[in-house]
Amino acid sequence: MASLNDNFLKLKAGYLFPEISRRVKVFCEAHLEAAGRVIRCGIGDVTEPLPRAAIAAMHKAVDEMAARETFRGYGPDQGYEWLRAAIAKNDFRDRGCDVADDEIFVSDGTKCDTGNILDILGAKIKIAISDPVYPAYVDTNVMAGHTGAANEAGTYAKLVYLPCKASNGFIPEPPKRHVDVIYLCSPNNPTGAVANRPQLEAWVKYALEHKAVILFDAAYEAYITDANLPHSIYEIPGARECAIEFRSFSKSGGFTGVRCAFTVLPKSLQAATKTGERQPLHPLWLRRMTTKFNGVSYIVQRGAEALYSPEGKAQVRALVEHYLGNAKVLYEGAKGAGLKVFGGMNAPYLWAKAPRGVTSWQAFDKILAEANVVITPGSGFGSRGEGYFRISAFNSRANVEEVARRLQALKW
Amino acid sequence: MASLNDNFLKLKAGYLFPEISRRVKVFCEAHLEAAGRVIRCGIGDVTEPLPRAAIAAMHKAVDEMAARETFRGYGPDQGYEWLRAAIAKNDFRDRGCDVADDEIFVSDGTKCDTGNILDILGAKIKIAISDPVYPAYVDTNVMAGHTGAANEAGTYAKLVYLPCKASNGFIPEPPKRHVDVIYLCSPNNPTGAVANRPQLEAWVKYALEHKAVILFDAAYEAYITDANLPHSIYEIPGARECAIEFRSFSKSGGFTGVRCAFTVLPKSLQAATKTGERQPLHPLWLRRMTTKFNGVSYIVQRGAEALYSPEGKAQVRALVEHYLGNAKVLYEGAKGAGLKVFGGMNAPYLWAKAPRGVTSWQAFDKILAEANVVITPGSGFGSRGEGYFRISAFNSRANVEEVARRLQALKW
Repeated sequence: MASLNDNFLKLKAGYLFPEISRRVKVFCEAHLEAAGRVIRCGIGDVTEPLPRAAIAAMHKAVDEMAARETFRGYGPDQGYEWLRAAIAKNDFRDRGCDVADDEIFVSDGTKCDTGNILDILGAKIKIAISDPVYPAYVDTNVMAGHTGAANEAGTYAKLVYLPCKASNGFIPEPPKRHVDVIYLCSPNNPTGAVANRPQLEAWVKYALEHKAVILFDAAYEAYITDANLPHSIYEIPGARECAIEFRSFSKSGGFTGVRCAFTVLPKSLQAATKTGERQPLHPLWLRRMTTKFNGVSYIVQRGAEALYSPEGKAQVRALVEHYLGNAKVLYEGAKGAGLKVFGGMNAPYLWAKAPRGVTSWQAFDKILAEANVVITPGSGFGSRGEGYFRISAFNSRANVEEVARRLQALKW
Repeated sequence: MASLNDNFLKLKAGYLFPEISRRVKVFCEAHLEAAGRVIRCGIGDVTEPLPRAAIAAMHKAVDEMAARETFRGYGPDQGYEWLRAAIAKNDFRDRGCDVADDEIFVSDGTKCDTGNILDILGAKIKIAISDPVYPAYVDTNVMAGHTGAANEAGTYAKLVYLPCKASNGFIPEPPKRHVDVIYLCSPNNPTGAVANRPQLEAWVKYALEHKAVILFDAAYEAYITDANLPHSIYEIPGARECAIEFRSFSKSGGFTGVRCAFTVLPKSLQAATKTGERQPLHPLWLRRMTTKFNGVSYIVQRGAEALYSPEGKAQVRALVEHYLGNAKVLYEGAKGAGLKVFGGMNAPYLWAKAPRGVTSWQAFDKILAEANVVITPGSGFGSRGEGYFRISAFNSRANVEEVARRLQALKW
């Protein structure tokens, strides 16, 4: 008799964003007059057109697929060499980080990569995550059997939750206890906090001491404007021995619908076999990708490559500055509404505290009903997100200006 | 201390195709004069341009991404409704198969899907595969810990190998013993054999009796021309209760470099929890895809949709007929060379028997050295592939005519 993976049955009912969609749908159907006024600052999805350089490159790539001489079939599973070279040079070596082209693995998304990476890790690893946290980290570990059951608040047994709160600037400190794998996301989704150099140094030190692996999600790296903040974990000495970095073109080039991302797995990073022998993880990830993945669309990879051209870089910069400008408008708006607000400086997300005693979902329902604005309830990111909500800056300027006005008009 | 997935260490050194690439590279570097003459009939990769309908649709989609009004960010994780509707109608309901739109999951490849599906199945399942077999089925089960170690011949303990040989037309019969999950690939890679209706009926009967799940890989379905052969497992009554079907646009629309495929998971298909309760697998796969996948590129999905337009269908038909025409030329050529040949009628692969006493890799090396043609050694697909080799019909007509001539000129 075929059996199913019982770990799936431990998952809490709805992944956060489907539940938000459901509530918005219910609201819009019940309030047809307001439906057209709804502005979405919930899911972190970009809204502005792709950079012209990517558009031109993808048209060219489509044309290449129309002629036998330039047609491309299967590409290298790890990604085309020209794209990996552009990534390694521009994102890492030009910033002083020692990353080789063949340590880059091009993929179709950071959500995919941070889930799939568990394939190559042992079954009995102790996992640490931030609280609040991007929910996919938790759910993929539940599926992989790395957790026990969840309690009422959605907190899973066996996971180590690292509290992120106003008092630590929403950046977790290394725990006193031992863990094997740590998820760090900086700039952070959902809080918009960014780890500074000493904070990352403390984590690398911890990981080296504990022979732990840091899964460093830098999907929002492009939003860092403060020159003192590290863009990559590999700016920290020792990180090549303990960290895997995940990057995406979703929020830099606006590729959420185009699909392209990459993982950096240094050849110097090792983990233990059952007998305690240390072996590099790079060959395992390569084997995983060649066996369970077929590479990213040629057309998409050409689009991603174009983001590294001089015009592409300028267009990405303009796109990111547009969203950061939005974040500024939203920050002022939420502050003007008397809310305590965090993030939004080096990140496209703001993390706002609902007035005392108001829960995240109450805030969600109120803001939807009265301001016709969709935000993301903080409790959806973990129990320590309760009482907060996330505002996404991914929108048009006119829309965020309207959101700022409506937030200020809200009576709590 | 972070540990690695020890199951990866059981994998045999090279996945088949990287080893072929390596030998071809070594040969070409040692024989510069012959390098330009080499014709590749090894890896099953298409060579002809994309259908014009897909090209036009992808250009249009790229343009949509260039304007705010038509820009698309994250799509539905399960695939856009218009693509799922086109698939369910054209590939299934129009052929009398009961498949609903929301039983279709659009993905980026059948290799990915057949590997990822293990995420939702139990850890202690008994797996049956054909021998010879598409290697990714085996390797993904090794990675998932469903096997023991491999012996010298690359045969893994705990897997149930179903012999495919000339005497059963290379279609395995259901085993006497119990298994939980069965991989069937029809039209078959590597042998080119296609299961007929009674053969599939026997498998569905077995699966229903044993409450087993059939993983039915129909990636080469478009090559079926014999009107009596089933295109989908869902043509067999009862299959909705026991089978998951995998399809791809790689070999129909020439999408190996574009990347689009889909899985059909009927809502009526169930598997057992640890306590023996039967539950549907559909919600687990949906959860898996929404949590570990972000959907296929919008541009690519528009390209796939266009393959279902009247022009798209005609162009796909012409493309498939081109490759089937190639297969016919290769079949005659290999036969003319005195080889025993199978497949190639309703499939783009031919399965040829090397002369008595010649191993698959010996045949590979000889054909490469003397005919400057790359084939795939049958032993790479399993111990019962020893002595055979696969010839791929994916090439230009001129190239396969030349291959046919060169094969006939070979002295064994």
